[in-house]
Amino acid sequence: MQKEAIYHRPKDNFAYAYDKETLHILLQTKKDDIGSVTLIHGDPYNWKHEQWQTKTMEMTKTGSTNLHDYWLAEVKPPFRRLRYGFQCTDGAETWVYTEGGFFSSPPSEIANYFCFPYLHGVDVFQAPEWVKDTVWYQIFPERFANGDASLDPDEALPWGSAKPTPANFFGGDFQGIIDHLDYLVKLGINGIYFTPIFKAHSNHKYDTIDYMELDPQFGNKKTFRRLVTACHDRGIRVMLDAVFNHSGFFFPPFQDVLENQEKSQYKDWFHLWEFPVTAEGEPNYDTFGFVASMPKLDTTNKEVKEYLLNAAKYWVEEFDIDGWRLDVANEVDHSFWREFRRVVKAVKPDAYILGEIWHDSMPWLQGDQFDAVMNYPFTNGAIDFFAKQLMAAEDFAHSVTKVLHMYPANVNEAAFNLLDSHDTPRILTLADGSRERVKLLYLFQLSFVGTPCLYYGDEIGMAGGQDPGCRACMVWDEEQQDHELFAFVQLLIQLRKDEPLFGNNGKFRFIHTDNQQNCVVYEKFEASGRLIFAVNNSAQDRHLQKEILAPITAKPWKEWVFTNNSKVDKQPVVELADIKLPPYGFRIFEQ
Amino acid sequence: MQKEAIYHRPKDNFAYAYDKETLHILLQTKKDDIGSVTLIHGDPYNWKHEQWQTKTMEMTKTGSTNLHDYWLAEVKPPFRRLRYGFQCTDGAETWVYTEGGFFSSPPSEIANYFCFPYLHGVDVFQAPEWVKDTVWYQIFPERFANGDASLDPDEALPWGSAKPTPANFFGGDFQGIIDHLDYLVKLGINGIYFTPIFKAHSNHKYDTIDYMELDPQFGNKKTFRRLVTACHDRGIRVMLDAVFNHSGFFFPPFQDVLENQEKSQYKDWFHLWEFPVTAEGEPNYDTFGFVASMPKLDTTNKEVKEYLLNAAKYWVEEFDIDGWRLDVANEVDHSFWREFRRVVKAVKPDAYILGEIWHDSMPWLQGDQFDAVMNYPFTNGAIDFFAKQLMAAEDFAHSVTKVLHMYPANVNEAAFNLLDSHDTPRILTLADGSRERVKLLYLFQLSFVGTPCLYYGDEIGMAGGQDPGCRACMVWDEEQQDHELFAFVQLLIQLRKDEPLFGNNGKFRFIHTDNQQNCVVYEKFEASGRLIFAVNNSAQDRHLQKEILAPITAKPWKEWVFTNNSKVDKQPVVELADIKLPPYGFRIFEQ
Repeated sequence: MQKEAIYHRPKDNFAYAYDKETLHILLQTKKDDIGSVTLIHGDPYNWKHEQWQTKTMEMTKTGSTNLHDYWLAEVKPPFRRLRYGFQCTDGAETWVYTEGGFFSSPPSEIANYFCFPYLHGVDVFQAPEWVKDTVWYQIFPERFANGDASLDPDEALPWGSAKPTPANFFGGDFQGIIDHLDYLVKLGINGIYFTPIFKAHSNHKYDTIDYMELDPQFGNKKTFRRLVTACHDRGIRVMLDAVFNHSGFFFPPFQDVLENQEKSQYKDWFHLWEFPVTAEGEPNYDTFGFVASMPKLDTTNKEVKEYLLNAAKYWVEEFDIDGWRLDVANEVDHSFWREFRRVVKAVKPDAYILGEIWHDSMPWLQGDQFDAVMNYPFTNGAIDFFAKQLMAAEDFAHSVTKVLHMYPANVNEAAFNLLDSHDTPRILTLADGSRERVKLLYLFQLSFVGTPCLYYGDEIGMAGGQDPGCRACMVWDEEQQDHELFAFVQLLIQLRKDEPLFGNNGKFRFIHTDNQQNCVVYEKFEASGRLIFAVNNSAQDRHLQKEILAPITAKPWKEWVFTNNSKVDKQPVVELADIKLPPYGFRIFEQ
Repeated sequence: MQKEAIYHRPKDNFAYAYDKETLHILLQTKKDDIGSVTLIHGDPYNWKHEQWQTKTMEMTKTGSTNLHDYWLAEVKPPFRRLRYGFQCTDGAETWVYTEGGFFSSPPSEIANYFCFPYLHGVDVFQAPEWVKDTVWYQIFPERFANGDASLDPDEALPWGSAKPTPANFFGGDFQGIIDHLDYLVKLGINGIYFTPIFKAHSNHKYDTIDYMELDPQFGNKKTFRRLVTACHDRGIRVMLDAVFNHSGFFFPPFQDVLENQEKSQYKDWFHLWEFPVTAEGEPNYDTFGFVASMPKLDTTNKEVKEYLLNAAKYWVEEFDIDGWRLDVANEVDHSFWREFRRVVKAVKPDAYILGEIWHDSMPWLQGDQFDAVMNYPFTNGAIDFFAKQLMAAEDFAHSVTKVLHMYPANVNEAAFNLLDSHDTPRILTLADGSRERVKLLYLFQLSFVGTPCLYYGDEIGMAGGQDPGCRACMVWDEEQQDHELFAFVQLLIQLRKDEPLFGNNGKFRFIHTDNQQNCVVYEKFEASGRLIFAVNNSAQDRHLQKEILAPITAKPWKEWVFTNNSKVDKQPVVELADIKLPPYGFRIFEQ
């Protein structure tokens, strides 16, 4: 037994409260090394109460990566306290793994066991309930729709008349969005994530000038209020983008520093290295990346904190927005985010707090900071497999399984799963223009656990490379829209709402991968049933053995047949047959 | 290479800010599997600044357990941001380990690397500066000294006239402590940890009746204020014990619940399962352990929080105490402790917050909750090896090395290292009455990193088994005190103050263990020098090869010779010689 590869440490993804009465206990072992794991568990005070003597429970192997297996147990300790250890057995040996090390049999001294001292409801990670059933749509306001030409910046170009550049403008605004809300309703989304809308210099508005004011090119507060109300009337939540890591160059406090230098009352608002502060050449102050025009704010400074937290509160309290997406969230201090959470949740307890973090985000997802992060590790696997065709089927399964096991299940259920954004090329471009591969991406994203986000225009087949290419004007000319793709996405969103196991319910696992045929089979399941998805990620006809469907043959089952992208027929299946899949085709089976 | 055993995850003990400019990066690998590890690191924005191109750095193997090796790198990223990976080499292979998995050569895509996004001073774990140089002394007030007979409980017995029982009283009080402060000054300690002093029912006072009042048997607030002042005048810090997990049975709100049941205004102060609440037989409410007389407080209840946080503030603000020890800290919610920290540090920024947690405490030691926990994992190793003689030398080294690598170095430097307490048998009893073994325990404890705590009376040779045995009256009759032991402890404390490397400075590591001879050799070292401790943990004469001292032979070195327990002579050593150690003897070499 490879004892060195066995890992567990209470909290994070390894031991956490899934809800107010259930603990999830996860163990990592070397792949294919261990035949079974039994959780030995009991109350820390080891009371010989008939209800709760020390017990054992078989753990379930919930997934594997190329290196590790993961084993899960779900326990409901009656006194909300738990001591536990892992009895690991392979063909030859049995070892009991505890905080105190490995023992050849369960140690009698309870202090050796791992400890989850007390399950407190208040410490349970809890994203807002509504997030679970939300399908997000990301809007880059300068490029979604121009509804009020009177607000256009002087240099604005006619809608869609040019390629997007880092500096050009097309006059997208709030009125444009209001005008097209019914389009979004038709698509079926029920949450909008707006990239920044506050007063700023650039077209992307990530260089804030005033956190308390809207950018005049988008409209005034009255129009914005109308927009929020119009969204809410349609059951659509509104999430804004808070750029608190850095300000814009033209943020008056930074301008004051440039002007008054040591004498500026704002000199402690930034991380200045020396005087005179200069924006010529290499900046001599902390910045976002090395961008001189984005001076980093000192979020530990009392006045800065007050200013930003006040802004965070203001837009929730005054405009009833439903969530904040936090730009460059990983580079702002944890202390600030804890306070941010307190302030925002005090005003609106079910506000959603989403951090922009591209890497492993466990330290921000412990219940005291964010409700979710932008789940780029999910994105990377999906894009490399379906869009770029760079990843083998098995590696894709490992990649997704790794993401699912790096966070608690309740974190995964609120994860913000995107395929692309204003910071990446568009999916159609990543998929070499293949609508079929884009459809598989959407199928996977919209049937996965978590909360999906669509990037504006992808659903009608817009293409575009890395920023600024991905920020083109939304195509409203229906003749230029891909209606087949739109209908397909629309149908998937509808299925997500109508079919619990298609949506954000049940558990996810791969049941088959085939590198040679470039196919994967995964399922969503719960006690009452399952949905099995067989997906052909290749340009060839494929053929999978019927035995893959074994899990669903015991009871009556059906196949979902997609008809013209507009509806799904559930057809009873009486006999098990091999699964034939057309190029980039998929089939769904239900039990 | 055993890739499955390689582990790293940013934050916790694996990647943390040691101070405002230094990151510590730790890697776990399978023991003896890997020959060298190189840290590949650079700025996340990968700027080709001459000062900060992607660099490499050899990592140092800082210790091993029976299963793993640990490798450390200390990095000062100029822009306080870091992306990094580990290049691991054994005889046959080289692999680069990153967040994105293993690569055969360093991946060019920076997003693969692990990320420490930004080093924020405010997020650095920071215990109060003074703690580092504190030697604590734990007093159980009922049993330290009786200085005011007028306060004695009716049933109080003459001092030391009987064995301690769970229920008897001897009249220890504040005046008694004041009367003996000069004894403590003579011993050399500079911090006192008092077990609870608030109004309570029992002799141990862990069953609080009123958190805002002192127990009358100890004295009034005027006397307590005199005690604190007298301590501060002598450079002694004062830490009190906060029992916030549960109240006592006679806490008026709980009595009110018993009396008024559903109608009690305090029914939400506790975790009641049903009405009528009854204290007969098995409690039908949450308790500490299964002790009916200790009803668990609902620390998420607004009124309870306000009451307890007010008490936490009151004793700091009004009586200038220097720290809080938190009873059963692991069973109170994290949210409460975060607020507790804010409240206490707002009143006294350098107050010390010490949690009672017996197991792995990483979730409480991330800078937002506690400054330290009672380091029982340290205790267990020291007791099993030196006192009980149950552990082999190598296992002891593994046990200590594990403790040192399970937390960040700055956490270890503030760790509360105890050998025993009111909750365990006394060290002399654990050591089968062997003064020599007790001396080795003290030598190890007082030369180790962290802040040591002595339990009252141990230093004069008091014995006593598990509670209540360990809670006997302090022996003030000088004829019954072990003066040799006292002088030895006194000398060690003095060395801790006078000799930086003996005290809480430098790094600790084992350089030799000998299971057969039952000897260990460890060192404290820093760039400028080292102290080597050779310790014979057996009852026989032992003989260690002179090569063990190789690290110090290159430069002039000295041996510390202990003279009658009262002073240390530093004698120059000119020639390397084998190390002869008498039974339970030790030798110290300096360079």
